[in-house]
This record gives sequence, structure tokens and C-alpha cells, in this order.
Amino acid sequence: MTYSNKTVIITGGLGFVGSSLARALVAQGAKITLVDSLIPQYGGNLYNIHDIRDRVTVNVCDVRDPFAMAYLLQGKDYLFNLAGQTSHLDSMSDPQTDLDINATAQLAILEACRKSNPGIKIVFASTRQLYGKPDYLPVDEKHPIRPVDVNGINKLAGEWYHLLYNNIYGIRACALRLTNTYGPGMRVKDARQTFLGIWVRMLIEGKPIKVFGDGMQLRDFNYVDDCVGALLLAGASDTSNGKVYNLGSTEVLGLKALAEMMLGLGRNGTYELIPFPPERKAIDIGDYYSDFTLITDELGWTPKVSMAEGLARTVAYYQEHQSHYWQD
Amino acid sequence: MTYSNKTVIITGGLGFVGSSLARALVAQGAKITLVDSLIPQYGGNLYNIHDIRDRVTVNVCDVRDPFAMAYLLQGKDYLFNLAGQTSHLDSMSDPQTDLDINATAQLAILEACRKSNPGIKIVFASTRQLYGKPDYLPVDEKHPIRPVDVNGINKLAGEWYHLLYNNIYGIRACALRLTNTYGPGMRVKDARQTFLGIWVRMLIEGKPIKVFGDGMQLRDFNYVDDCVGALLLAGASDTSNGKVYNLGSTEVLGLKALAEMMLGLGRNGTYELIPFPPERKAIDIGDYYSDFTLITDELGWTPKVSMAEGLARTVAYYQEHQSHYWQD
Repeated sequence: MTYSNKTVIITGGLGFVGSSLARALVAQGAKITLVDSLIPQYGGNLYNIHDIRDRVTVNVCDVRDPFAMAYLLQGKDYLFNLAGQTSHLDSMSDPQTDLDINATAQLAILEACRKSNPGIKIVFASTRQLYGKPDYLPVDEKHPIRPVDVNGINKLAGEWYHLLYNNIYGIRACALRLTNTYGPGMRVKDARQTFLGIWVRMLIEGKPIKVFGDGMQLRDFNYVDDCVGALLLAGASDTSNGKVYNLGSTEVLGLKALAEMMLGLGRNGTYELIPFPPERKAIDIGDYYSDFTLITDELGWTPKVSMAEGLARTVAYYQEHQSHYWQD
Repeated sequence: MTYSNKTVIITGGLGFVGSSLARALVAQGAKITLVDSLIPQYGGNLYNIHDIRDRVTVNVCDVRDPFAMAYLLQGKDYLFNLAGQTSHLDSMSDPQTDLDINATAQLAILEACRKSNPGIKIVFASTRQLYGKPDYLPVDEKHPIRPVDVNGINKLAGEWYHLLYNNIYGIRACALRLTNTYGPGMRVKDARQTFLGIWVRMLIEGKPIKVFGDGMQLRDFNYVDDCVGALLLAGASDTSNGKVYNLGSTEVLGLKALAEMMLGLGRNGTYELIPFPPERKAIDIGDYYSDFTLITDELGWTPKVSMAEGLARTVAYYQEHQSHYWQD
């Protein structure tokens, strides 16, 4: 119970991963502040914490507000730094906003910690997107970095600021490079957070799931509870300081196979192969799955929830709660 | 004479490398616009172009001014994008400014090109600083990226924006990773641009050159005319599009040996070994010299000016023109 009675701040705390993390921390008796901008195009949704609303403090503000962030970070034991602009396409059409959130705001957060709370421990949510098109599979942390979109470049800068502040100033920080994460609470209105969101919505609405290309692209996936488990382990250990860890799964699936796995969970489930939209093709990374040996060896993390189980739970959640996530 | 009658814009155009490049382009009959903010702490100095002042257009503005930049970039054939915050220490004490200049402004420049001048060819001045402490020597372009300071992270983001806009939008761009560049026109008031600047000043003032540590750290150096030669070749060729090239030299020297080489050029030259200041030690990269085979093979570049010759020219320049570079 590392986090019992500890003060914890989560940026992106009303989002998909942030709200699931909050739930786990509530169970450990942490004192939790959730920071979220609730921008409609992003992942925040107050309904994500409907069951723990009275056991957390919600502070609506943007990580781009350096004054609010400097105040909120004071005295906290842990920062789970999950807020981000996650849409690859939006990062190309509006690169400045992506830069402001994923790089500039991160640097301001770290400067605030350096000036007024250097004892804080920070876990930063990074992304496998910054590896670009893999040279080899599975991709380990030594794989060259080669972002294919503005989002990848800015997330990498954000990640490196964290490692640098660990290395130079001793502000304990580490980064997890998340792969496709899915589960209850993910954005399902559209594909801005994960394509699986819109797939689940289509399935529940009885519409065909749209699979780009030939559907043979390989991906790995983590159910959100497994991702939360990794965040908690990384925060609890000083072994993680200054380190980058891949998340991942041993269950690697082609997208068409994934769609087929989902069909049985919906009503009249169907899918169709459609050509890549050109703006997506330009930033597509081909096959990807990660080697997550390092976090297994150093922090003891392995994913526990199978795709079949995780998808079933996810679809069931949205079947029950869909009115809080999208309107027809 | 690739650049004859071509329109060329140089950011950082009143700085050290920018002004030397301008001189070479004037000789080829280019129509040149020099953009410089003339911020006193940076490298711009109108005296750097005193001999070509009537053959170039000077526009004083900051690359952080997206409106001015968008206007100035219209219709230009070439952009040599050299403006940058170069001080590693300043990037740690004021990281936001480094980010604004080295990343945010670069993205705005590329967006302006995308919207109104996608036919432009861009050469971006990057830095070997982003390799961090080398894993092996000489360092080639495949060496892992591992910035050790805020400046390295932001320069890398700036570099990658250029490559991304080349790869995604076809805006022809390449990057040169400069090593220690020296020569007439470099900032000699202090060490913000290069330690060799302050060394030359100390030598001319008859004060001891201060060498950090044991003076055994290896470095490679390019005389500014060689650096300019590389920029011109990179701009003239479409082979360079989307590429990163190291600059470097076959003449690799320890810093103490370099100091000894300089002594004969001053009056009563002396040097002293002093311990690393802690803020410099924290971001020091140890030995560095580069493998520049790639640019030799692809663009035909090799450095031509020896250290002995380049240093002699440099010291002679500042002995004659010192009143325009520092006041006692």
C-alpha cells in the first residue's frame, strides 16, 4: 500500500487512463487531485469517475496554465503526468497546439517541480509512437527513435524533459511508453484517442467496423487495468528513476483478426476493409509490437488480462453506459 | 553558381555562420535577406556584414514572430535556417526561451512554408550536442540520440520538424549537425556560442585561457568557411532532402593541446587548468568527434582549412577588429 495517505496529482485525471488510475489509488487510500481541462475533443469525461466522485478532488484546469499547475503541484508526493494531446491527425492539422500541450506544458510542470517541489516522484505517460516504423520486432527500448508525426516529436521532447530533470536535478521521474490501451473510460466518440474506441462504438451501434488497408497490421494491446498496474509499480519504485519502459503484450493480433474477435461481442457485428485515407497512410507505422522484458525484469510487471476478457468487459461497459459517452 | 539571382533568406543572418554564409552568397550573386533579432546575448552583430552591408537586405525581427516570418518567407528559393539559442547553460536556467526559439519558432516557420511557399529548399543548422555522451567514436549519424541538456532536446525537435515536413509534405529540407565551429564573426564576449570565442578574447587580452578539467577532452572543429561550404552544398543538392549529415574534421584535438596551439598566436599567451564548474560538469559530454563520411560521400564535402591556419586567421581578425566585438 505504497500510496496510502499519500498526496497524488494526476494530470488528465478525468481521462481514460487517469480515471482508472484514480480508482486504483482510491482503493489504496491516497489523497487524490485530478487535473483535467475537459476540452470536448480530448479524453476527459466526468462520468469516468462517477463511482469515486466523492473520494477525489477535481480541479478543472489546463496543463498549459503554468500558474495553476505551479500551485497544484506544491506538496504533492506523486505526479502521474498523463495529460496529452493524443490525436496523430490533429497534431498534423494543428501542430502548435500539440506542441503547447505535449512539450511546452511539460517543461513548465518540471520547472514548477524544480522550484517548489523537487522531492516529488513523477511517472510520465509516453507512447510507442515515437519509434516510428519499426526496424525490427518486437521493439525494445534500444530501438532507434524516429517519430513519423508532429505528435511523436513533441511527446519525445516531453519525455526527455522528464529524464533530463531526473538526471540533472534529481527530480525522480520515469516514462512508460504505452502501446494501444483500451477499456472502460476510453474515448469512443471518435478515433482521437484510440481506433478501438470508435470500433467499440460501431459495434454497439450495429454498424460495420472499418479496418484500414488489408487488416494484416500487427498490434499489441493493454487492457487499462494492466496499464494502471504498470503506472503504480513505476511510481512506487526508485529503480525506475531516469528510465524508460515499454508496455506491451504477448498477445499480438492483426487488425482484421481483432475485428473478428470483437464481432461475437456485439449484435450483428460486421467489419469491412477500406483503403487507408491518405492522411493516415502518410503517418502509418506498419506492424508494431513491443518487447517489454525490461519492465518485467526491473519492476515485475506483466499484463494479466487477455484480449478476449478485456474486450468483453469493455463492450459490456459501453453497452450499459453508452449514453454518457456519445449521443446518437 | 547555383545561387546566382536566387532569393535566399538566412535566419540568424547577422550571426557568426549566417554572416559568413551571406558573404559567400553575395559572391555568387544571390538576392539575400538576413533576418536577425540582434538580441545582445546572442550572436548577431551588424559589424559581421560591414563589408557586404550594401549588397544584402537586413530585416531585424525575431524568428519567434510568426507574422513577420510568414511574410518574409514568401517567394524565397532558399532558407538557411541558422537562428537558434546556442547556450547550453542558458537553456537550463531559462528553458522556456530555448524551447520558444529552437522548437516553437521552427514549427511556425515550417507551417508558414507549408501554407505559402512549399517549393522552398531549407537547410537547418542542427548540432552534435544531441548525441549526448558518445557510446563510440567517431560518432556517425546512426549513433543513438541522447541529449544532455534542454538545448539538445529542443534542437532535436526543431531538426525533426524539418525532416517530417520533408517526408510528409515534400517541403525539401535537410539538417547539418554542426560540431565546434570557429572563425571570424563568432561571439567572443563570452562562451554562449562557443568556448573558443572566450578563449580568443582571453588570448588577445593577455589573460590566461581557462581549460576545464584535465584538458584531455577530445573535440573536432570546423573553420567557418568549411561550415559555409557544407551549407551551400546541402542547399544546392536534392540528394540531401530529408537527410541529416554530421560535419566534422579529421583533425581531432584535446582541449589542452588546442590551448597550446593558440598560445603562439597571442602576446604572452598562457592557459590554466581549472576544475569544471558544477553546472557545466552536469551537462558535459566527454570526448566527441564525428564521422562525416556521409556528407563526403553524398555531397562531396570535406573540410579544407587546418586548425593552425584557421586559428591564425581568427586571432588576426579579432586583433584587428576587436573594438566591434567587445569593450574592455
